[in-house]
Amino acid sequence: MSEQIRVTFEHLRDFMDRAFQKAGLPDADATTVATLMAEAELQGSDGHGAIRLAPYLRRIREGGINRHPHITIEREKPAMALLNGDNGMGHLVMKRAALLAVEKARTAGVAWVGAHLSNHAGPASLYARMALPHDMIGLYFAVGNANHLPAWGGLSMLLSTNPMACAVPTAREPAVVLDMATTVAAYGKVKAKAQRGEMMPEGWMVDRSGKPLLDPKRADEGFLLPIGGYKGYGLALIIGLLAGTLNGAAMGKDVIDFNSDFKSVGDTGQAILAIDPAAFGDIDQFKAAVDAVVRDLRASERMPGIERVWLPGEQSYEKRNAFRRAGIPLPPQLKASLDQTAAELDIAPLN
Amino acid sequence: MSEQIRVTFEHLRDFMDRAFQKAGLPDADATTVATLMAEAELQGSDGHGAIRLAPYLRRIREGGINRHPHITIEREKPAMALLNGDNGMGHLVMKRAALLAVEKARTAGVAWVGAHLSNHAGPASLYARMALPHDMIGLYFAVGNANHLPAWGGLSMLLSTNPMACAVPTAREPAVVLDMATTVAAYGKVKAKAQRGEMMPEGWMVDRSGKPLLDPKRADEGFLLPIGGYKGYGLALIIGLLAGTLNGAAMGKDVIDFNSDFKSVGDTGQAILAIDPAAFGDIDQFKAAVDAVVRDLRASERMPGIERVWLPGEQSYEKRNAFRRAGIPLPPQLKASLDQTAAELDIAPLN
Repeated sequence: MSEQIRVTFEHLRDFMDRAFQKAGLPDADATTVATLMAEAELQGSDGHGAIRLAPYLRRIREGGINRHPHITIEREKPAMALLNGDNGMGHLVMKRAALLAVEKARTAGVAWVGAHLSNHAGPASLYARMALPHDMIGLYFAVGNANHLPAWGGLSMLLSTNPMACAVPTAREPAVVLDMATTVAAYGKVKAKAQRGEMMPEGWMVDRSGKPLLDPKRADEGFLLPIGGYKGYGLALIIGLLAGTLNGAAMGKDVIDFNSDFKSVGDTGQAILAIDPAAFGDIDQFKAAVDAVVRDLRASERMPGIERVWLPGEQSYEKRNAFRRAGIPLPPQLKASLDQTAAELDIAPLN
Repeated sequence: MSEQIRVTFEHLRDFMDRAFQKAGLPDADATTVATLMAEAELQGSDGHGAIRLAPYLRRIREGGINRHPHITIEREKPAMALLNGDNGMGHLVMKRAALLAVEKARTAGVAWVGAHLSNHAGPASLYARMALPHDMIGLYFAVGNANHLPAWGGLSMLLSTNPMACAVPTAREPAVVLDMATTVAAYGKVKAKAQRGEMMPEGWMVDRSGKPLLDPKRADEGFLLPIGGYKGYGLALIIGLLAGTLNGAAMGKDVIDFNSDFKSVGDTGQAILAIDPAAFGDIDQFKAAVDAVVRDLRASERMPGIERVWLPGEQSYEKRNAFRRAGIPLPPQLKASLDQTAAELDIAPLN
């Protein structure tokens, strides 16, 4: 797609910042959300970046999100906390959760912070990665915001793509950052395919008779496939219980489809676990050991036709560097949608 | 296999207990290991039960396992501990780890206990399940004891099947217990197929050119496939970093193949996380909410040809009940191998 437009991180962030401010979010909150969304774009998480602006704004406008949340610690122990997100933007809730988990892990060694009454917060890796500057490991779990997955063998849509992420600090290598939906494809990727007018590869979705579904515009006629069959179903369920049920948040049939309902409180549940490797031993020795594993894997003998062995998070790392230099690529349809948002809100467009 | 022999849980446990005692383990330790191995059989984890007796005994005999370990807490914080397993049987190390994690979680809310210098400990679910009688959630992660998995796109065997398990307490329903290798099939299942003289289904293993490998006796000519392609590779790596590298245990190229080396110290790493739902809210409300999710999933509309939707852990639960009533089925080859062990050790055979 040679016609792709490129924008700087700063321009994209500032545009979304303007949009959220105009939509009524407090200045600091608008900046926090816009920055995290621009960071999502910067690392190539295009299903969770600017494409989400319009639906977020619609949800704010229609009352599905609280513009002025009072995010509180509802319960607390030395190694855990439960946040009440007061139905604010998920980005605000989970940034707070991640920083609190890091703070608690510093004394407890390990800490888990869950949230209820949160909302969609973008890519899981953003929050797992918040542990890295503190030389900690971050793990993130979330209940997805629409059910696209049945039980293995079932047809009732009772589970979401419930993603997880884990970020592990390194010494000289890019951090190891796994960010994955428990389905073969995340639903955001299906949406991105639809927006680009592309078909999906076989294996992403099936229809209700189990036949491959390839047209992303027909996505609501079928469901996503879990990774490893019943294993991915099990993972989606467990993540849903940990991030949703444990926090008293929505899970299973109580999950509201945020693609069709912009008014109801979604009661999204998420959780973050911070682990301080310094509690287990020397931190530099740990980071050097992770580096060694990374290098061994990268230096693997390769299968025929494979040019390079990638580590989890390495492609995002390279995109971050490349997009910082050359700008973030935006599909023309997305740019048009952002221009429309600018016109509707009467704010300066993205330039 | 109608000729299968059936044995009671007690007879199997007592036989393995006799074997470990005769091999030089202290009485209490022999009983602990034998009980956990018999529990593995009882829940249908046949790749981790009696089939492991002969290789465990060989490792003990050849000096690869310390008969009299002094298992110690090497490092400790309110929500974590690092155990030094002193190269004892993994079952002893991880039972201690699980109980310690539960104890710490009671005050901290959440607790993580890792181990190094441990050994193979049987099915992951055994240890995650140890949280259940305390109304807690258990998560278990382990570095496998042989590398059968390359990086995605690679050929160098640098990763193991690194399994995880999670057990979530319920009120009236069977506990939700997910126990999965990060490969499509666990290596124990490959061994069980070989022992039964059966072929493997396509998708379990490929050879070095990427072609399906179906004969389990040729397993060392290929490698296991990760679930969800690069996602399973990422999961195996992350679990290895959390259960191995974080604890200063073997990971990557340092992992010793316990199928061929019975003398060297394996330095196996494992970890357990206990989460106390009572810290997050009312425990009965939590368990009832998990029950509700379980029932909704079970009552799913089903795909054509599917008779029942299973919950993770439900098949093990049913096997546990059935095998308690009717006995644990043992393939004739396995019974013959146990008889041979009895003869070699000069102990009363399994009856």
